[in-house]
Amino acid sequence: MKDLSPVTGFSKFSKEGKIDFLAEHLITAGDAEMIKSFWHENSELQKTLDEFSENTITNFPLPFGLVPNLKINEKLYCVPMVIEESSVVAACANSAKFWLNRGGYTTEVLGSTKIGHVHFQMDTTYETLNSFFTGHKDRILNSTIEMTKNMDSRGGGIKSLKLIDKTASLENYFQLELEVETCDAMGANFINSLLEHIGKYFGELLEESNYQNSNSYEVIMAILSNYTPNCIVRSQVSCSVDELNDPSLGMSGVEFAKRLKTAVDIARVDTYRATTHNKGIFNGIDSVILATGNDFRAVEACGHTYAARDGQYRGLTKCSIENKIFTLWLDLPLAVGTVGGLTKLHPLSKLSLEILQNPSANRLMEIVASVGLAQNFGALRSLVTTGIQKGHMKMHLMNILNQLGASETECILAKKFFEKETVSFNGVRDFISRVREN
Amino acid sequence: MKDLSPVTGFSKFSKEGKIDFLAEHLITAGDAEMIKSFWHENSELQKTLDEFSENTITNFPLPFGLVPNLKINEKLYCVPMVIEESSVVAACANSAKFWLNRGGYTTEVLGSTKIGHVHFQMDTTYETLNSFFTGHKDRILNSTIEMTKNMDSRGGGIKSLKLIDKTASLENYFQLELEVETCDAMGANFINSLLEHIGKYFGELLEESNYQNSNSYEVIMAILSNYTPNCIVRSQVSCSVDELNDPSLGMSGVEFAKRLKTAVDIARVDTYRATTHNKGIFNGIDSVILATGNDFRAVEACGHTYAARDGQYRGLTKCSIENKIFTLWLDLPLAVGTVGGLTKLHPLSKLSLEILQNPSANRLMEIVASVGLAQNFGALRSLVTTGIQKGHMKMHLMNILNQLGASETECILAKKFFEKETVSFNGVRDFISRVREN
Repeated sequence: MKDLSPVTGFSKFSKEGKIDFLAEHLITAGDAEMIKSFWHENSELQKTLDEFSENTITNFPLPFGLVPNLKINEKLYCVPMVIEESSVVAACANSAKFWLNRGGYTTEVLGSTKIGHVHFQMDTTYETLNSFFTGHKDRILNSTIEMTKNMDSRGGGIKSLKLIDKTASLENYFQLELEVETCDAMGANFINSLLEHIGKYFGELLEESNYQNSNSYEVIMAILSNYTPNCIVRSQVSCSVDELNDPSLGMSGVEFAKRLKTAVDIARVDTYRATTHNKGIFNGIDSVILATGNDFRAVEACGHTYAARDGQYRGLTKCSIENKIFTLWLDLPLAVGTVGGLTKLHPLSKLSLEILQNPSANRLMEIVASVGLAQNFGALRSLVTTGIQKGHMKMHLMNILNQLGASETECILAKKFFEKETVSFNGVRDFISRVREN
Repeated sequence: MKDLSPVTGFSKFSKEGKIDFLAEHLITAGDAEMIKSFWHENSELQKTLDEFSENTITNFPLPFGLVPNLKINEKLYCVPMVIEESSVVAACANSAKFWLNRGGYTTEVLGSTKIGHVHFQMDTTYETLNSFFTGHKDRILNSTIEMTKNMDSRGGGIKSLKLIDKTASLENYFQLELEVETCDAMGANFINSLLEHIGKYFGELLEESNYQNSNSYEVIMAILSNYTPNCIVRSQVSCSVDELNDPSLGMSGVEFAKRLKTAVDIARVDTYRATTHNKGIFNGIDSVILATGNDFRAVEACGHTYAARDGQYRGLTKCSIENKIFTLWLDLPLAVGTVGGLTKLHPLSKLSLEILQNPSANRLMEIVASVGLAQNFGALRSLVTTGIQKGHMKMHLMNILNQLGASETECILAKKFFEKETVSFNGVRDFISRVREN
């Protein structure tokens, strides 16, 4: 193990200087060349990519794939997905195809407002403070006019502003809760700027009015919440159980529906299963979030918080079989943008939005939720029929062959052999050894 | 809006064929060329990248950056991070530097076992079935010897196998719960293969023994859980409140400690804040997870489930000030690998592990948790001092300038002007307009 010494002024090093630092201490000269081989040939474009973040030295490539034939509300989409895990795109493509002639995916945006808070402490009572707040609310809202005029003109802006009593949780703790509509922008910067202003302005009003103990007013922080239960979309698939009959399932539509519903119900009652059930849903969701230049950490945090909203962490999808009608649906809170952030700055995010026919933020919510639902259906379908390993390892076979340095001929032989055999790393290694010994 | 028709055999199209499909229906010829411009010049390497997933047409580049000077258990690391969001790497680098001479980060792996379940239904009672299970447990375990021998030789393997009664949640629902140690592998394929085998074998034993109602035994699914509360690591920073004095804070160490602790406490009691608090932590975590070829959906699902484990979704970090000692810590369950999956297959994942000096899985857990903690400290530090927008928008300034097509001179002027001004999209646009008018 090498011992590094503290380095100063690293952020001021040029990109080459940073790579040289690595080469001096941690990697080989060949690695340094490899790092540079990932730069884009257009140096202007590379500069834009470099400036998305800090201390950047190169691009990390993730596979950019496509799911064709996803029918949402009677319209067909070809969906761009960015994901490193094998079998996610394949599962979504299979689910898209399965539902193509069974009514497709139907969606509805159930709400689109976002939320943020000025978190503050003050030595006062809720009743007194709320009376002051109510009396000054118009002045506060008027003070934001300059900041919200562009958003207002697009049909968005502030929807409500409330004082919330949180003193039962923490001494002297209150919130100013701001609800906003941000149209096609994710809106984080807009909301945060508003909240920082409101937190400061409310303090000025308290002081100016000689409110008792106004000097105890202390804003701890002012920031949007990534939890947006009122910015939420539903996607669902539904058909009669008889329509589910499909030779690929290896069982009747009735039995398949019953087994799939049981799997969904298990994820509703068992937290260990719920985590993995939802993880699969996010395999699909995050792939589109990444492809469109949105923020998958925000979307994950929101969805998982929602999964735990009733006191137990549960699966996000629900399933019913009623009057021989099978229905699977996903309610997903998520805040996305189709303008602002990186959406139009990253050349491939811009392209992804173009492939999706330049959707509004609401339309993108519908697409994202449908891909999440498609992924869930695909994963459950494998789990309750052949088991997850068969398809997954088949998809992973090429990775294993690449790792073993298999030649093209060896790959062809292995693909043929493993059509009927279960893939495992050791199994593939043994097969390749046998081929090489012959 | 264009209307697509269903396309058949899409997965069999060549990469060029898939891009042609896009160009025929959804994008321009120029876009098609742009897509190809992201291919790596080494076609063998590009083929490996293409085969990670399905229907791939190109690489989606994410910024690959570095955080120097992260001291963990007295050893210095330079940490590779892959993230598209501005200011995350900068915040981590600042936090690394802040703690460099204040004791650094100290970590401890509190557990490393993973878990999976055979979910099954059977018309029987727990008592009777458990008696049968206990009597046949050794035979079940013996039947796995061939599958676990490699893992056993590395010091891992099966740690326990239990029958769990879930009938109170769902009729006839039981689990076989498998606990395993997977050493430096994340182990998903290993665990899933074992579970599929055990589920099938247990059914054979029931049948062979003429267990009553053995024909009602129905495996719904067999799969690992991404929730791993016993695969968990702690990272913490600690120093006296006086040592926190730092001119960059704009307040005393005592006041900073108090405000920071209040912010952490708020995230413990308020779910809206907890979501965003944890989202920030995962900004750091996922960056390293992506850089090292691990699966961020698994890590997210696990961490968020853990955040909700007591019935309320809460912030993942805790803070104490006792006897004038400030301590901030993060307990994070996570399952990562440093072998298997893409870790050594993706050239830049392999490089990331090299930059981290080829850590064991446990060491990687310690690094990941420390970066998550560093990100949390950095975000809270901004929030409770200058507010989040100042630093964030400063980092985002270059993105805005690029979007406005600012020239190099205009960028220099803007950077200088906005050193003392708050950055907003409109502010920057107005500034550039004024510059251009002059």
